[in-house]
Order: sequence, then structure tokens, then C-alpha cells
Amino acid sequence: MPGKLKSAVLGASGYSGLELTRLLDRHPKLEKPVLLRRESPDGATDLAEVFPELCGNGGYPLRMLSWPELQKQGVQLLFLATPHAASRSLVPEAIARGLRVIDLSGAWRLKQEQHRAIYSFQDADTATAAELTAKAVYGLPELNRDCIATAQLVANPGCYATSVILALAPLLKAGLIDRARGIISDSKSGVSGAGKSPTPRTHFVSVADNFSAYSVFSHRHLGEMVEQLGLDDAELIFTPHLLPIPRGILSTIYVQLKQAMKPDEVESCLRDFYSGKHWVRIFAAPKLPELQFCLHTNYCDLGFCLAEDGRRLVLISCVDNLLKGAAGQAVQNMNLMYGWEEREGLQ
Amino acid sequence: MPGKLKSAVLGASGYSGLELTRLLDRHPKLEKPVLLRRESPDGATDLAEVFPELCGNGGYPLRMLSWPELQKQGVQLLFLATPHAASRSLVPEAIARGLRVIDLSGAWRLKQEQHRAIYSFQDADTATAAELTAKAVYGLPELNRDCIATAQLVANPGCYATSVILALAPLLKAGLIDRARGIISDSKSGVSGAGKSPTPRTHFVSVADNFSAYSVFSHRHLGEMVEQLGLDDAELIFTPHLLPIPRGILSTIYVQLKQAMKPDEVESCLRDFYSGKHWVRIFAAPKLPELQFCLHTNYCDLGFCLAEDGRRLVLISCVDNLLKGAAGQAVQNMNLMYGWEEREGLQ
Amino acid sequence: MPGKLKSAVLGASGYSGLELTRLLDRHPKLEKPVLLRRESPDGATDLAEVFPELCGNGGYPLRMLSWPELQKQGVQLLFLATPHAASRSLVPEAIARGLRVIDLSGAWRLKQEQHRAIYSFQDADTATAAELTAKAVYGLPELNRDCIATAQLVANPGCYATSVILALAPLLKAGLIDRARGIISDSKSGVSGAGKSPTPRTHFVSVADNFSAYSVFSHRHLGEMVEQLGLDDAELIFTPHLLPIPRGILSTIYVQLKQAMKPDEVESCLRDFYSGKHWVRIFAAPKLPELQFCLHTNYCDLGFCLAEDGRRLVLISCVDNLLKGAAGQAVQNMNLMYGWEEREGLQ
Amino acid sequence: MPGKLKSAVLGASGYSGLELTRLLDRHPKLEKPVLLRRESPDGATDLAEVFPELCGNGGYPLRMLSWPELQKQGVQLLFLATPHAASRSLVPEAIARGLRVIDLSGAWRLKQEQHRAIYSFQDADTATAAELTAKAVYGLPELNRDCIATAQLVANPGCYATSVILALAPLLKAGLIDRARGIISDSKSGVSGAGKSPTPRTHFVSVADNFSAYSVFSHRHLGEMVEQLGLDDAELIFTPHLLPIPRGILSTIYVQLKQAMKPDEVESCLRDFYSGKHWVRIFAAPKLPELQFCLHTNYCDLGFCLAEDGRRLVLISCVDNLLKGAAGQAVQNMNLMYGWEEREGLQ
Repeated sequence: MPGKLKSAVLGASGYSGLELTRLLDRHPKLEKPVLLRRESPDGATDLAEVFPELCGNGGYPLRMLSWPELQKQGVQLLFLATPHAASRSLVPEAIARGLRVIDLSGAWRLKQEQHRAIYSFQDADTATAAELTAKAVYGLPELNRDCIATAQLVANPGCYATSVILALAPLLKAGLIDRARGIISDSKSGVSGAGKSPTPRTHFVSVADNFSAYSVFSHRHLGEMVEQLGLDDAELIFTPHLLPIPRGILSTIYVQLKQAMKPDEVESCLRDFYSGKHWVRIFAAPKLPELQFCLHTNYCDLGFCLAEDGRRLVLISCVDNLLKGAAGQAVQNMNLMYGWEEREGLQ
Repeated sequence: MPGKLKSAVLGASGYSGLELTRLLDRHPKLEKPVLLRRESPDGATDLAEVFPELCGNGGYPLRMLSWPELQKQGVQLLFLATPHAASRSLVPEAIARGLRVIDLSGAWRLKQEQHRAIYSFQDADTATAAELTAKAVYGLPELNRDCIATAQLVANPGCYATSVILALAPLLKAGLIDRARGIISDSKSGVSGAGKSPTPRTHFVSVADNFSAYSVFSHRHLGEMVEQLGLDDAELIFTPHLLPIPRGILSTIYVQLKQAMKPDEVESCLRDFYSGKHWVRIFAAPKLPELQFCLHTNYCDLGFCLAEDGRRLVLISCVDNLLKGAAGQAVQNMNLMYGWEEREGLQ
Repeated sequence: MPGKLKSAVLGASGYSGLELTRLLDRHPKLEKPVLLRRESPDGATDLAEVFPELCGNGGYPLRMLSWPELQKQGVQLLFLATPHAASRSLVPEAIARGLRVIDLSGAWRLKQEQHRAIYSFQDADTATAAELTAKAVYGLPELNRDCIATAQLVANPGCYATSVILALAPLLKAGLIDRARGIISDSKSGVSGAGKSPTPRTHFVSVADNFSAYSVFSHRHLGEMVEQLGLDDAELIFTPHLLPIPRGILSTIYVQLKQAMKPDEVESCLRDFYSGKHWVRIFAAPKLPELQFCLHTNYCDLGFCLAEDGRRLVLISCVDNLLKGAAGQAVQNMNLMYGWEEREGLQ
Repeated sequence: MPGKLKSAVLGASGYSGLELTRLLDRHPKLEKPVLLRRESPDGATDLAEVFPELCGNGGYPLRMLSWPELQKQGVQLLFLATPHAASRSLVPEAIARGLRVIDLSGAWRLKQEQHRAIYSFQDADTATAAELTAKAVYGLPELNRDCIATAQLVANPGCYATSVILALAPLLKAGLIDRARGIISDSKSGVSGAGKSPTPRTHFVSVADNFSAYSVFSHRHLGEMVEQLGLDDAELIFTPHLLPIPRGILSTIYVQLKQAMKPDEVESCLRDFYSGKHWVRIFAAPKLPELQFCLHTNYCDLGFCLAEDGRRLVLISCVDNLLKGAAGQAVQNMNLMYGWEEREGLQ
């Protein structure tokens, strides 16, 4: 199929990787993506062995990663759905070879050193790593559309970060929030956000009929949020929780407005900010989004509730952590990078 | 069995009523409770018809409520697990006849008129209603032990209110919280809290794989919380959410301390306050309670996480909404009213 | 959009209706479908009021059903996702007006009177009803492709029936099953199969952490199964169960083979029968399909396990009850009726 | 506490072990049980570290297993909730030292060599192993009450086996079932039955919204069933499935009766067999037990549905796999071994 983009995915055997593969597989502007693996030779050789739900649409062969081979096949765009450290070590080579990269890990999202510290990256070539860190574009299309269009390296945002940043950006950028009063995001995520490795924490019996908070004050996505929102670290409290469901994130966000507003003014602020941006939906008060509404879609759903005093505001933000929070957003970024319509392949 | 207390339950066919019946049924100080119904003659005549899980331990006959009959049987204590309005209309008669009453509804919990307004009670005899409102004791044993001991009418707290008040009381009563900065309780409850009536909201397909906020700024339990904690209405934001699980409440509570504290100081404050109180468990940081830990028990589990600045504090509070949040607490109140050990019949 | 088919849906506010609307909405050969309602004027006037997940893709107006209006708009194909009795009373008019109809209810599936009896239809015009009963084609594309192509009235199969018939048809039609030994289908369905009306049976607390059998020996879908498979009523035992999940059916089917076979012979029998039929996937032993694999797809997944004696055979059959078991199959039928590729609009 | 029995538990950190510890802890005839561990010195030293839900009732210290120490403490009864191989190697020593043993594993359940083969035991002393195999009593109290009373070694039944044997025993022992027609148990279990080790199979995302069959024709519990029921291996098909719930087993069992019976005759057969046996409940047709009814109890609930021909019979059997299917049954066995009332400590 001449004229179609050639892409490759490394890490298709994770939850985000599976969603990404499915999306790319039916994207009208793409050839069938090349699926790559870094595992030992005795690992799965077809993704349908890992995910039997893929049977029946032809094969999904997994090929050992080889840079010369990639280039020989004419691959132009590489998706990394790999662990943070793997992305950190692979991207320099990919960029040096002229590939464009969309990285779904946390490897290239953070600009400030104190935030990157939490990942403990061991960069072989620190100069290149610093250069790429500077060059990487944070891939939140609703905020960074223009930079994404021309980026060679896109750092796809974290799932929690997507839900929090999209809810807060309109009011914060408009200067309406009293930051000194503090901002709180009480966020809840389904279990696929914890990855596919079996652990005591992801055992069915530990999760079912349960609910719990974790990483209070210390979750890695906090760094992304404050950087992208222009906040000081102490201005945002972020508390993630584990929901007994497979997928989806709902963030309940508490802010104090500088001045009393009316509900329709808050709504207008949100609507204006996301005007022309297809993948954010605003719910008019008193309707609130529920997690279910956005599942299996690329939407971020936003709603709010304003106290009678017009100052205390609760924002509700929902995303599917595997789509708008990962694979769907990656495809949205690709659409921008190649000048395609933002919705292409996502409906 | 001479010497054992005679009790009756009205409303045993709801979720709280079932738990209460089970607890009373095996309480060593009680005769088998009389189960009452107000329904038409063609309703269930045995509770095991409503809850087949009760089969096999003898019958659970449901008798039509009759005041003379109750007194003839020597019933001294009446539990009401009825809708708010039913409790409001029945209690005056029960009290007039000399019964002691533990009411699990919201009918008698609120002292301030502006809070009661939300229930829209239609009292036939407003003078008596006012008198009973004044006389009713808010049945949170960890706060009101002495008053409960001698009370004729105990208003059993709401499930959300129990989780929030128990978490905040120690620090608030010690004057350590900066109330002016606002207090937020982001609370999450299982579906049994919404009652047993089938509604679109409690349909399995609406709840499963879903999560949602509701009644933001307007939930009825907010009134109880501010009254019992001595807060102004605007000082507490309470946001309930519906969890896709049958039972349990976890509240994530955000406060700002007046002065920087250390984690062990916070822990001491909680431990001292609940010293000698069996049904509250304190988790030492960094361990946090999870919802699962308290299910099917009468415990309220409390934990916390303190930011590095020593000021921003996140409290986690868990209860089983049907036990510590309803039936278990009712039994705990009964134990106090009759001078029995607080744990009796609850282990 | 000239050249595109005009269709209408009555009953879009149920679970199957929602799935159907979504599929039709993005089907490349169709105009946006007309959504119809029969409710009182104060019902929802846009489907997105009922299903907020539909927001953001333009409106989904619900129009009162009017035959002249339908014809004025040029609607050629009518989907009914209505209760059985409604379909039974509406179809004669629709057929008389020259519309083609795909009915998702059980109204027109059964040929034998003793099976139809269970629905207790009250036909106004019994002659027409009898004529349409005879004329209606059972819309299981893998069995009745040719008849469907030319049908005016397609009776879309029941969800359970789809899973059972597709599993048994290959071996039964090849005469390999010892019918005298009896055939058993132990089937398990998610809750959406029970419909959207809130009932005690579909209350979250009744379903979660639970599992139960129902309608043993008496489920309505049994009639379809024996008719389509050419069995006597007593030759098939069908036991439906309710799974604590929103969607999906897995049937575990027990048969005795007339002669000992080898696993690859069983597999060949299945593969040959479904050769060229895209929407049935065969799993090679010892791999078995799991319910999850087919969710949100139109596939029926089949697998099996053969005892060492080569005679006792267990078949496993999975479908998504809302897709291959309802809306997806309806679209597949439409594709056949209009000569389009069977996969059109279903991937 | 003089006069109370001293017991010990090895393997309390598993799901069955936790339930067992809780039951023993409040059993009126027992001292607080000694909890034993075999792990390396750096493992948990208190069970509440593994299960925080145990906090608040005093400590649950885990002591390294030492035979001399056990005897010095006067322990008379040892519960093993260990893997099969561990039980197989530990029991000879325990028996030699005069302890009575209740083993919850599969190590000593099977009498016939062809069934034991599936466990691949490596016995150090084959003569002793053979002797103990012969001596071990299969601990199903409803069938083997007298032998259990005097047993030194009780092999606690498997969870699936308990549900299937209790359903079939009455009709089989009465000679009413046509064994030549084959018996099928289609059984479904919650995830705790798969143990506490995290595996891809027990990952929340693999189980939630899913349902699957496994080990068809080859599950280890099949051996117990046919031995205890006196069946030939080929006469029983047993198909286990994994339910997306934490606990509970429901078996749907299909038999053909030799002669036509009436429903009340079937019911009488069940009731007579279990007359005086508290922990089996019979449901009168058309009521059927649901899984939920028996959860958190030691009951086995039995119900049935008879076809109009009076021959084809479907039995429904429910147990809580951790109680009647494991720890509860172990306590019931202990009660029999020491001449206590069968219900002691189980209500």
C-alpha cells in the first residue's frame, strides 16, 4: 500500500501495547504495524499467543528488534510501550537513526531534575540524554498541539496526569484558581494501570471488593502535573487509589476560586478552552461524567460542581487509562505529527 | 431464658436490618429478637423468605407491629431500620410507651433546624418532635459514651458520617486543624449504602466497571458531620462516590494542620483519643488501611500520611457501612445502654 | 449521501439498541439511522440523555414512530429492539408497507406452535401472524446465509441460542452426536442479558459476588435451539446461569459421540463447517476460548476438549451477548440482506 | 485455660489458613492456636503483617516449626494448610509423635494409586506413606462421621469435591441414578480456590469481566469424587470454571434417574440422607440455592430441578470454598474428633 506510513511498536505485549496495536491495525493512514520484541528467543513469536482475543484477523508476528532491519523495512515512526528504563536507553539510538518516536513510558516526560530523580535513570550518555530531555515534547495534544506537530520525540503523558492536567488547565491558565489555597486531586484508577505483571497487589482476591489509597504525596505522575500546569510542587496534593475495575480513571479535583463565579461562567471557561478540540467533552452542571461513559473511547470527560459561595469548586475528570491515558493519546499525537485529522483511527 | 433482654426490630428486610438481625440473634445477652413488619398482610411472613441465606437456623417470623403486643411480650428495646419518615412518625409512640429506641435512620440525628430541613419531616405533633429531637443522643460511642448509656432515644449515625467524624474528631478536638483552610472528605461507598430498592442507579450494569460522584455539596450526612465536629457548614466539603462493590466505605480526608507536626505526633494524637476504645484501629504510617481489612467487622480503621512540610495531612478512614456504619454500631450502642462490654456480640 | 441505505431503529434505549445504534452509526454503507421511540411525549428526545456516553458525536434525536413519516424519509430497513409483544404487533404493518425488518426480539423466531406458546402472543390478525411466522427467516448467518439474503423479515436469534447452536451445528449436521444419550448446555450469561429494567434480580448487591442458575428446563431460548438443530425437545437440557459481569455468554456443552474420534478430527469438523465464515473462530485443543476474548467483538469463539475415550466431548462456546448475540448479528444479517461483505461495519 | 485443647496451624498465611485461624481463635473449646511457619527467618513473624485485617485482637505470632517445642507446649492437634508435597512429608513425623492431624491439602485423600499418581508424591519412606494412606480418613463429616471421630489423620476434602459429593451421595447411595448414562458436574469456583500466589491467571485484569473453563477431564479433585462416591472414573465428567468473584463454589450436576420420580420424592431422599446433619441445607423446588446464600458460612446448600419426564435431574450445590470447602470443614472434623457438638465454633 504505497503512501501509507510504516510504524513499529515495541512492547505490544502489555495492556497499553495491545490497545495501541489494535488502534494502529485499523488506522486508515497506516500499514499494518511491525511488532517488535526484546525478549529471549523462546518468548512468544506472535502477539495472538499472548492475547488470544487477537486471533482471527491474520497474524501479529513479533520480531526481534533490529535497527538495520527496521530501516530496511522503511519504518519511520516507532512507538515504545516499554518500561521507563528501556525507553530511556533505546530512544537515543532511535533518534540518531532518524526515526520519530512516541514513547508511552515516563522516560522523557519530565523537564525538571528534581522530578526526574524519582525514576533513577542510569543514562549511558548523559549529554545526549540531556539534549533529548530538552527536545522531547510532552504529548498532550490539547495543550501542545503545535509542538507535537513538528516533534521528533513525543513523551506521551501519564494516565493520571492526563486526567488531572486537562481538568485544571483551563481555570489555571485563566488565572482563576487561588493556588495559595492548595489544589487537591483525589484520583482513582482501574487495575490495568498497575501493569500486567502479577503481583500480590494485582491478585484478584486483593483487589475485588476492596479499595485503597497508595503513593500518597509520592506518585511519579505528580511531577508531570506540576510541570505542565506551572505549579509549585507543594501546591498540588495528588492521591491515587486503586479501583476494583479493569480500566478507567476518575479524578475528583478540589480548588478554591479567587473570586466567586457562576456555574455558567465555569462552564464557559472550560468550553472555550477546549473549543475545537474533539477529545474533551464538557458536561453541563448538574450532570457529571461517570467513569463508564468514557471507557473504550479516547475522550476525556469533564464536569464540575460549584458550591453556593461560588468559590469552592469540585471538578470531575474521567479518562480510559489505556486510551486517552495511553494508546489513544499516542495515536492522537501521531495524527498531529503527520498532519492528519485528530480523530483519524480513533472512532 | 430469664434475665435476657427482649428486643424487637422493625425493618429487618433491608440490608442493615438483615445484619442487625444476625447480630442480635447470636448476642449472648439477648433473647431472639422479635421481628416486626408494617407491610400489607400479603408480604413475607418470615425473613428467610426475603433472605434465603437465613434458612437452617430456625424461623425468623415477621409479625405485624402492634404496640400492645410488643409490651405484652415484654419488649424493652426497639430497633428501627426504617425509612426516615417512618422513624420520625413511630418514635413518639414508642418513647411514650416507655421503650428505649435505637433508630438507624436519619430521623433524629440533627439538632440544627437548617440541617433537618433537608429531610422535610412532616411531624404530626411538632412539640413532641422538638422535644425528642432535643432528647435524642447521637449514637457514636467513641464520642458520646456517657450520654448513650442513659439515653432513651439513640440516633444511630450515618455510615459516611461515622467514617468522617471518627477520622477528624481527635485532631479537631485538640485544636490542631486549620479550619479556615477548609476540610475535604472525598468518600467512596459500596452499593448497599444506596439501599435495597432496585433503581436504574443500582442496576448491576450501571455500577459494574463504573465509578461516579454524586450529591456533591448536598449529601444529607454533611449535616451530621458538621454538627458533631463543631464545624461551620462551609468548612467541610464532602463528596460521596459510588464504588462497584457491595459494601464498605473509605474516606480520604484532607486537612491543613495549624503547625508542622511529625508523623508520630499525629499517630499519638489518634491513639490517645481512642485509647481504651476497642472498635477503632490506628494504622502506623506508612501503612494505610484498605477497605477490605474492615469488611464484616465493626472496626473503623484509621491511617494517615503527612507531607514533608508537616502541615498537609491526608487521613484514611474505613468502615463497613452495614456494621460500624449501621447495625454493628447499633449493637455497640445497645451494649453501652445496658452496661455491657462494648465488644459483646460483635466478634 | 445518495446511494447509502436509510435505516431506522425502534428501541435504541435498551442495551442491544445502544450497541446497534453505535454500529449503524459508523457503518460505511449507511446513512445515520433514524432513531424511533414509542414512549409518551415526555420521554427522552435524544438518546444521549439516556446514554451520556454518546455525547460528543452530534445528536441522536429520538422521533415518535410514524409510518408515513418513515416512508417519506425513505427508510427501507427497520430494526426492532423492542419487547416481544411490541415486535409481534408492529411487524405486520411494517411488512405491509414494504419495509424490510430485522427483529431482535423473540417474536418471530419460532416455527413450532408448542414453542411459541411460551410467549403467549395475542395476535390481532392471526392469519397474517401465521403467514409472517412462516415467512420469517431465522437470522443465524452461518446457517441460513442464502435465506437471509432474500428475506423481508429476519428474526435475529437469541443470545444463548446463538452460542449453543453454533457450537453444536457442525457435529450434529454431520451426524456424529449420539442424540439418544442427551445433550446438555450449561450456559452462563452476564447481566445485560436480563435487560435494562431495574429489578431485585439485577440489583448490584444481588449479583455481585454471586452466581445462580435460573429457568432450568424452561428458558425460552430452548425452543429456538431444538428447532434450528433439528432436535426433539427432550434431547437437549439447557441450564442458564447469571454471571456477575456486565456482558458475555459462555456455554459449556456436553455431548457423547457415536464413535470414538480424535481431537484433530473434531477440530476439522468444526473448521470445515465454518470455513469461509469470518465470525466464528475455532480454538485448537488444548487451548480453550475464554469469555473475555470475544467481548466487544462479533466473534463466536469455539473450543473443545475430548476425553481419552474419544467419545465424551465438551464444547466451549463464547459470544458477546450484545454483539454476536444481538446487535452485531443484526448488522451481519443486514450485510447479507444487501449483498455487502459480512464484516462490513463490524471491525 | 485448663481443659481447653491445644492446637497448632502450619500454613496460616494462605487463604484457608487465615479462615482457619479466625475460626480456631474464637472456638470456645480451644486455647488460642499456635501458628507455625516454615519459611526463612526473614519472613513475617506475625500473621497480622500478612493479613492486616487481623490487627486489633492481640498478636498472631508465627513461630518456626519445631516438633520438640510443639510437644513441650502440649499441642495435641495439628492443622496443615500447606502445599500437598509439604503435607506429604510432614505428616509421618507428626503422626509418629502422637499428634492428631487434620490436613487440608490433597496429600492423604486418595486411596487408589491411579488417582494419587496425579500428585507425583516423592515419599521418603514409602512403607510409612502407604500405611498412612490406608489409615487416613476422608474428612467429609456427613459421610464418614464415625471414622472421623476416632481418626488420628483426617484428610480434609477438596472444595470442589465437597460440593459434588454432598450433592450426589444421597441419590447414588440409594441406587437411584443411572450411572451408565454418565454424570456431569459443571462446577464454578471463585478465585481464592486458586491460591494466594500471584500468577497471570489470578491477575485482576485476567479474571474480572471474564469466565473460563480449565482442567477439563483432568482436575485433581475428580479422583476424590469417584472414590468417595464409588464410581468408575469414566462415569463422572467434572468441568471446573473460574468465576470472577473472590470465593464460593456452585456445581450444576446432571444425572439421569433409573426410574421416573416426583420432585417431593427427590426432596425426601435428600432430606432423609441429611437428617440430623446441620451443615447441609435442602432447598425445596422450585427454589434453588444461590452462591451468595452460603458465603461466610459452613453450609452446603442443595437444590434441584426435575424435568417433566421425572428422569432428567439437575442438582445445584453451593459451598464457600474456604469454609465448608476447607477451614470450616476442618473445624467440623475437629468437633467430631473430640466429641463436641458439630456446630461448635462455626456459627
